[in-house]
Parts: sequence; structure tokens; C-alpha cells
Amino acid sequence: MTRIIGIDPGSRIMGIGIIDSDGRYNKHVFSTCVRMGKESFPERLGIIYRAITDVIQTHQPQQMSIEDVFVSNNPSSALKLGQARGAAICAGVINGLEVHEYTARAVKQSVVGKGSADKDQVMHMVKILLNLSGKLQVDTSDGLAIALCHAHNGAYKTKIAQALGK
Amino acid sequence: MTRIIGIDPGSRIMGIGIIDSDGRYNKHVFSTCVRMGKESFPERLGIIYRAITDVIQTHQPQQMSIEDVFVSNNPSSALKLGQARGAAICAGVINGLEVHEYTARAVKQSVVGKGSADKDQVMHMVKILLNLSGKLQVDTSDGLAIALCHAHNGAYKTKIAQALGK
Repeated sequence: MTRIIGIDPGSRIMGIGIIDSDGRYNKHVFSTCVRMGKESFPERLGIIYRAITDVIQTHQPQQMSIEDVFVSNNPSSALKLGQARGAAICAGVINGLEVHEYTARAVKQSVVGKGSADKDQVMHMVKILLNLSGKLQVDTSDGLAIALCHAHNGAYKTKIAQALGK
Repeated sequence: MTRIIGIDPGSRIMGIGIIDSDGRYNKHVFSTCVRMGKESFPERLGIIYRAITDVIQTHQPQQMSIEDVFVSNNPSSALKLGQARGAAICAGVINGLEVHEYTARAVKQSVVGKGSADKDQVMHMVKILLNLSGKLQVDTSDGLAIALCHAHNGAYKTKIAQALGK
């Protein structure tokens, strides 16, 4: 089993999901979302870094999977999102995790089978794949979907198979 | 005296300059620039975070001054720059520093007296203000200029004056 932390990066809300995976079977370990308040922007980056470091040290994942941010036509929001994403990746690298990046499209394709799927469909499949019942917050669901995407990724599956001597 | 670390953020080269300031007199303490190689992007963010943490722990500055990135029309480079900047700010916040942000224009205005000054003019004034001779790398000079900008900043000067009971 490999433990994967999935991160849905945002400068206001950050989704975090941790799963165990052997490349075929996936198990939910932990999931949450971190909401930022009215702090200054530097303080928010500190909150992101500390929250992810805390979750990593508690649950000890080996790999990080993070969504490649979609950049629209707005350079100013791309900059903000980039900073939040930089803080999250830093927490992974500094805690010794391999960091893998996937586009939103790749995540949806991998979890739902369709790159243009909507959030509800992603949440539905996350629940089925991880055998979860009850309500799931949308950012938390996205964090788990990003972890699942890495678990479903071909290269990663090969690596696990090799590690298991298959 | 207050010790200030100035950061010129970039995803390929990061300028770092540390000065001591009493709001009027400024002294050069340390300056360098961190060059990234062909590492993966997450690894580069780790290098930035570690390098700045290392410099902070060695020289113990109390405040961080960082340039507010200029975002052009390219959201993809804004995202990259944002991530690098996020890693640098994180290192400051996690090490307990107050982080202050200044636009490139404010830095030039403060060091040279003209917001549209060129790099050579900034370097010339950085050398004079800090009594430095010899060659100075341009990114290193920018790191020092950003620290000087914070030292010259009105609000900051008031704070120091209060701290010194003036």
C-alpha cells in the first residue's frame, strides 16, 4: 500500500484528501478542507503550509498529488493561486514527499472517465470509489479525486507493481 | 537597529539581501542570489524555501521585505512567479518574520527617487547607500534595494523611532 495526499489548491479554500492505494484498491484515510479567513496574504500562505505539514506529519503519506492550476485570462488571480499552490508544494517537498501534478481534466478523466465532467459527478464517483456515505464538502471531494487520479495513473501503478514485486 | 531581509522573487533566480537599519543609517549584512538549475518545479520551490530558511536562521532578520510581482499579460508566467513568491513568503512566515510587500515602482522610488529608474541606477544607489565597492550581481542588488525600500518606508521608520523611544 502507498499512502497518497491529494491537494486541491486555492487561496481561500484548500481541499486535502489522503488515501491508501495498491494501484487497484483504494481506501479513504483522511480528508478535510482548510478555509482561510481575513488574514493578510502572507499569513494565509503560512496557514496553508502549516496545515499541510501538520496533516503530513500526522498521517505520513509517501507521495503528493496536486492539481495543476487552470490559468484563465486573469494574471492577477493566477499570481494569487500560484502563491497558494507554491506554499502547498513547499510543504510536500520539505517533508520529503515526491510531488506529482495533474491537470483538472486529467483528474476528471481518471475518476469519472470524462475530462469535462461536473463537480457532482466527480463527488459521486469519489464516494463510490472510496466507499463513502453521507455528505462530502466539494473541496474535500476534489482533494480525494486528485489523490485517486495519482493512484489510477499508469506510471504510478507500474511503480507500485514493481515495489510489490509483481 | 532592525535587521531586514529583502527578497527579489523569481522562479529561476532569487535575490536575497540583508541589512541592518535604524531608519536613517543602513548597513550591509549579507547578500546573495540563489540560482535554480534543471530541477523539477516542485524541487525548485523546495530549494527556494530551504535557502531562505537557511539565511534567516544564520542571520536572524526580524522583518521580511519582498517585491510585489509585476503581472504582465501572461497568466502562465504569473502562475510560475506566484509559486516561487509563495515559497519565499512561506519561509518568512514560518520562521516568524513580519512580511511586507512593495511594488517594483515603490522600491525604485524609495532607493533612487524615481519609480521608472533602470537597474543600473538602482545598483549605483544601493552601492552608495550601503557603502559597497566592487561588482554586485543585479539580482543581489535588487534584493538589497527591496530591503532598503522597507527601511526607508515611512510607517516603518515611525515604528523604529517608537521602539527607540524617540
